[in-house]
Amino acid sequence: MEAKIKVAIVGSTGYGGVELIRLLQAHPYAEVSSVISSSSAGEAIAAGYPHLSEIRTDLLDGVDPAAIKAKADVVFLATPAGVAAKLAPQLLEQGLKVIDLSGDFRLPQPGLYEQWYGKPAADSAYLEKAVFGLAEIYGSQVKNAPFISNPGCYPTATLLGLIPAIKAGWIDPDTIIIDAKSGVSGAGRGASLGTHYSELNENFKAYKINKHQHVPEIERILSDAAGREVVTTFTTHLVPMTRGIMSTMYAKMTEERTNEEFIALYREFYQGRPFVRVRPAGVWPATKEVSGSNYCDIGFAADSRTGRVTVVSVIDNLVKGAAGQAIQNLNLMMGWEENAGLQFIPMYP
Amino acid sequence: MEAKIKVAIVGSTGYGGVELIRLLQAHPYAEVSSVISSSSAGEAIAAGYPHLSEIRTDLLDGVDPAAIKAKADVVFLATPAGVAAKLAPQLLEQGLKVIDLSGDFRLPQPGLYEQWYGKPAADSAYLEKAVFGLAEIYGSQVKNAPFISNPGCYPTATLLGLIPAIKAGWIDPDTIIIDAKSGVSGAGRGASLGTHYSELNENFKAYKINKHQHVPEIERILSDAAGREVVTTFTTHLVPMTRGIMSTMYAKMTEERTNEEFIALYREFYQGRPFVRVRPAGVWPATKEVSGSNYCDIGFAADSRTGRVTVVSVIDNLVKGAAGQAIQNLNLMMGWEENAGLQFIPMYP
Amino acid sequence: MEAKIKVAIVGSTGYGGVELIRLLQAHPYAEVSSVISSSSAGEAIAAGYPHLSEIRTDLLDGVDPAAIKAKADVVFLATPAGVAAKLAPQLLEQGLKVIDLSGDFRLPQPGLYEQWYGKPAADSAYLEKAVFGLAEIYGSQVKNAPFISNPGCYPTATLLGLIPAIKAGWIDPDTIIIDAKSGVSGAGRGASLGTHYSELNENFKAYKINKHQHVPEIERILSDAAGREVVTTFTTHLVPMTRGIMSTMYAKMTEERTNEEFIALYREFYQGRPFVRVRPAGVWPATKEVSGSNYCDIGFAADSRTGRVTVVSVIDNLVKGAAGQAIQNLNLMMGWEENAGLQFIPMYP
Amino acid sequence: MEAKIKVAIVGSTGYGGVELIRLLQAHPYAEVSSVISSSSAGEAIAAGYPHLSEIRTDLLDGVDPAAIKAKADVVFLATPAGVAAKLAPQLLEQGLKVIDLSGDFRLPQPGLYEQWYGKPAADSAYLEKAVFGLAEIYGSQVKNAPFISNPGCYPTATLLGLIPAIKAGWIDPDTIIIDAKSGVSGAGRGASLGTHYSELNENFKAYKINKHQHVPEIERILSDAAGREVVTTFTTHLVPMTRGIMSTMYAKMTEERTNEEFIALYREFYQGRPFVRVRPAGVWPATKEVSGSNYCDIGFAADSRTGRVTVVSVIDNLVKGAAGQAIQNLNLMMGWEENAGLQFIPMYP
Repeated sequence: MEAKIKVAIVGSTGYGGVELIRLLQAHPYAEVSSVISSSSAGEAIAAGYPHLSEIRTDLLDGVDPAAIKAKADVVFLATPAGVAAKLAPQLLEQGLKVIDLSGDFRLPQPGLYEQWYGKPAADSAYLEKAVFGLAEIYGSQVKNAPFISNPGCYPTATLLGLIPAIKAGWIDPDTIIIDAKSGVSGAGRGASLGTHYSELNENFKAYKINKHQHVPEIERILSDAAGREVVTTFTTHLVPMTRGIMSTMYAKMTEERTNEEFIALYREFYQGRPFVRVRPAGVWPATKEVSGSNYCDIGFAADSRTGRVTVVSVIDNLVKGAAGQAIQNLNLMMGWEENAGLQFIPMYP
Repeated sequence: MEAKIKVAIVGSTGYGGVELIRLLQAHPYAEVSSVISSSSAGEAIAAGYPHLSEIRTDLLDGVDPAAIKAKADVVFLATPAGVAAKLAPQLLEQGLKVIDLSGDFRLPQPGLYEQWYGKPAADSAYLEKAVFGLAEIYGSQVKNAPFISNPGCYPTATLLGLIPAIKAGWIDPDTIIIDAKSGVSGAGRGASLGTHYSELNENFKAYKINKHQHVPEIERILSDAAGREVVTTFTTHLVPMTRGIMSTMYAKMTEERTNEEFIALYREFYQGRPFVRVRPAGVWPATKEVSGSNYCDIGFAADSRTGRVTVVSVIDNLVKGAAGQAIQNLNLMMGWEENAGLQFIPMYP
Repeated sequence: MEAKIKVAIVGSTGYGGVELIRLLQAHPYAEVSSVISSSSAGEAIAAGYPHLSEIRTDLLDGVDPAAIKAKADVVFLATPAGVAAKLAPQLLEQGLKVIDLSGDFRLPQPGLYEQWYGKPAADSAYLEKAVFGLAEIYGSQVKNAPFISNPGCYPTATLLGLIPAIKAGWIDPDTIIIDAKSGVSGAGRGASLGTHYSELNENFKAYKINKHQHVPEIERILSDAAGREVVTTFTTHLVPMTRGIMSTMYAKMTEERTNEEFIALYREFYQGRPFVRVRPAGVWPATKEVSGSNYCDIGFAADSRTGRVTVVSVIDNLVKGAAGQAIQNLNLMMGWEENAGLQFIPMYP
Repeated sequence: MEAKIKVAIVGSTGYGGVELIRLLQAHPYAEVSSVISSSSAGEAIAAGYPHLSEIRTDLLDGVDPAAIKAKADVVFLATPAGVAAKLAPQLLEQGLKVIDLSGDFRLPQPGLYEQWYGKPAADSAYLEKAVFGLAEIYGSQVKNAPFISNPGCYPTATLLGLIPAIKAGWIDPDTIIIDAKSGVSGAGRGASLGTHYSELNENFKAYKINKHQHVPEIERILSDAAGREVVTTFTTHLVPMTRGIMSTMYAKMTEERTNEEFIALYREFYQGRPFVRVRPAGVWPATKEVSGSNYCDIGFAADSRTGRVTVVSVIDNLVKGAAGQAIQNLNLMMGWEENAGLQFIPMYP
């Protein structure tokens, strides 16, 4: 057997980082050679994550580009906003391939980043180099690119649900409303009143309405698909569950269409792509049906009474919305099968 | 102290019925004199609901209009669809006052009921007599009416969130989209795969998109408020929690308005009504903030970028969405203070 | 109507504090005249707890014994460990009655407190004055006492489940094993990895085995009941739910007894006490059956095969395990009916 | 590559069956050649389990031993109690290897089965042939055996936690108390009030105390380990979560031992077995730390104050407690590596 590609994970103590470790465990061509954390360097990763006991017995490395270069071929950055902006260029200069799971390179215009993230943007030169890794849409650009910006969780569910209809001209881009719902793991492992069990359990809440930092990312890609500027109404809600995102999306149809027509359009559009599944007419996906897997499942309700179509799209926010899609991008980048190491059946129930 | 009004509850073994029992326990002017169940007559109610042990030690009565008349002044019907259609007329003929919590008398046109409920409608004469008990809107008709049709849970949250803006002409009725989410208790106590713990826990799902039987109820009342026919896009979702409904509603503003203007409009509209609370700008309600109480809390996000307003409305589906509003209607009907026996603080956390 | 007794709550921004506010809302003889918080003085209590919007519109007061004296007759202390140790004496010196919900006065020996709590103990003179407010057991001492130490949540469920059998000599005190489980609200509102939603949801964990600070409190009272020193094995677990405690307790029977004998013994023992309910043979209580109420429900499994009895006892940790029992103590202290303002039906489902 | 062994799953529409499908997806030496259901034969398995869409597109086969023989080498029986009793002998007579996940062959004495299961027992000849597949204890008997009875979920967690200490003579078998807790998926997919979301969510309950059908299975194997008859006190509880079992076990130590001694004993005992992980002193496992994996994690609290040891053992009830251990037995039976296809990292969070 050929030697596996060596992968380093910066931010290994966050949920995105441990999910990368979980998913890469069974990868046929890649292996995790270094788990890295600036805050916990020198500690055993299993100390903070006992589920990794006797599986990962190594200590966390610190963040040092040259040392990373000595240990790895590819680096995943699963770091909080603002970290990759500085670190990715250093790693790229070392000749490493980089897949950034944060939002730091998703918006090519520095001003837009600064407006929505409230932080200094990364160097423009690198912003331009980053390929937006929405694999089903920009996969051909991902191939051979050394630097991928992995999409956000909400954008992934939303864009996969809207782009085929927009490209086909079947919905009016000016009428798009996105009602999104996420499990709590999307907020990361940091402790706050906003992630407190007793505050969230048996509770459903809206937050950051029209203010979420994923708005410009969604609008940029929708605009790219529509060929003109698109603005959207975007609501995010927190669901009392750990994993899963659903985007329920609404738009005016440009002419009357049936569910069956939408289904055919989407199946054709995603032909050959292993991770998008389109439900039959009258059936909509539920988040548990993709839990732990890299699938994005989509269903439709085209309504002749109102002339609108409702699109329902679900993903596991930590997999297709983060670590899984990052590995899918690694596969494309390296020329491997798109689903190498990602053929998990969702965990149900 | 004056004697209390005697109340009978038909359907006492359902969640709506036991919630009526819970709420009426502390009512200053009413008391539950008979708990009634067709399926469990003769059994102790506490046998099936041990939380009532040593509180309700009586046995369940059967459904017999004459016997009910001997024991009660007012009857709450908390029965499955189709039961009240036949029973309410018999009780009214006995001279009893009736508050029906089911959907049987919410749609004045028999054909509409039959289309959406798939059952024979009630007698038209009684359909016309029933007053729609959305207390904050039709309260003046509820006073002295002997027969109230209590609104559905989704319609209550939705209508209270939309009517002031529609009546003011601030939103375009043709653009209304309602994205609603409910806890599982709304599905009742019946056991099915659709209420199975392992299927719903850690899961979020859409169901009955544009097909929910609450659609015509919502559209009828919106049309009444708008003064012309309104059709809507309406999605229902199941949240992994027991209680609570949120309606997230979207519409085009007829001209640009601020959150503060919406807040002022709604506070004015609901002036003097004890159960609607309007949140300050930039704050949206969460379902737990009304849990166990009769409140409906509302918040806004008016967006100049898109010209749309997002309205967020929450209730406890078993209280303001069922038993609590039924008691509120009892209070109005009897000329008592609107909030008699309903001054619960929400249970938090 | 006579004027109500005025009550101040120190620690109003914690879960115990807001639960006192919720429960006292409907009290016939007492009213909350001051909500107090050292950390949030000057802020509106509803800002941090929107469920109190339009119900409590007052601002939080600071902690000032003389100012409290001017506003209140009785003070509830719902403060973290170590605060009441210093504050209670100052309040008592002002002539105020004090009910302390913290652990600061539950252990008469300062050394024991310091060993288990890891903090300096309160002044011995005050430790001796505090009456342990396990109402069903020490109620006669509570009457007229000016200073009550309210029991812990685990001790309340455990002691009410064991004391009748110990006093009757039906179980061997040397064989007691307590396997206790609590919802997350028992950990308070402080944010930490230990209260993080994604860490606790869909998870069940043991913690502090034999090391919980409630161990000496339980053993002291069991020893008092047994008339000799009792040591126990005590395990605490965290359940993925917000409210509720169950203690499952095991002991050798001193001679063979049936479930019916235990039921009769306990019903006799708790005769006339409104908040202990003993389940019939073969039925055990569930935490939801007491949720939001001041009940403690108990069931038995006497086993002739092993000679052991299993006792199951449940409470709502924030009510009978904290705020509700504190009000029960207020009632006893003031000579009111024991259940004044506490006749809530549990919220189910 | 060599051809894979062909596996049939009877009871593919239950949770145990779909978990077998999930786990076998990535098995290097086995593949599922037939999914079988008596109730849903002829239907697509993905119709009832949309998470399998585009993964398993085959139709469910009916139960026909000769047809099974034509399609498979090994059969897993994931059927309700009473089915395998009749079916397993027919399959064995066809020359098929059989691994039964039900309780039908776990008790060699027919009378004991009939007493605890309330059904007719299987033929004694086959009861005697079945090897009890607690892999870490009876693995050497599993090798080459054609017929395995896979242990129950509670027994697996419990026995792995107790056997080393019993065999070493470190605990007194007469003092064993087992306080077990399970997620709801253990109850299967059947809909009933006992699996209803609104009844279980935010609830913790005890059930079948000392009456669970796993009692004789546990006692039989403990007796085998102790070399004399052991009876236990055994309580089962339902936790508001889908997956996971914890057994908290108590026993008198025969002489004082430290946590470190227990840890060393267990690590030695389970040396070389890939699925038992022993936690360091002062740390106990949580159910989420094994979720989705075949691990059994164990921790200790030896207490010199009481002379007792508390052992905490966790598994995923659907994996190590059912489908995972069944595959582990398949691996042993076929002479493959014990962990072939089972090297999943637990899904966390």
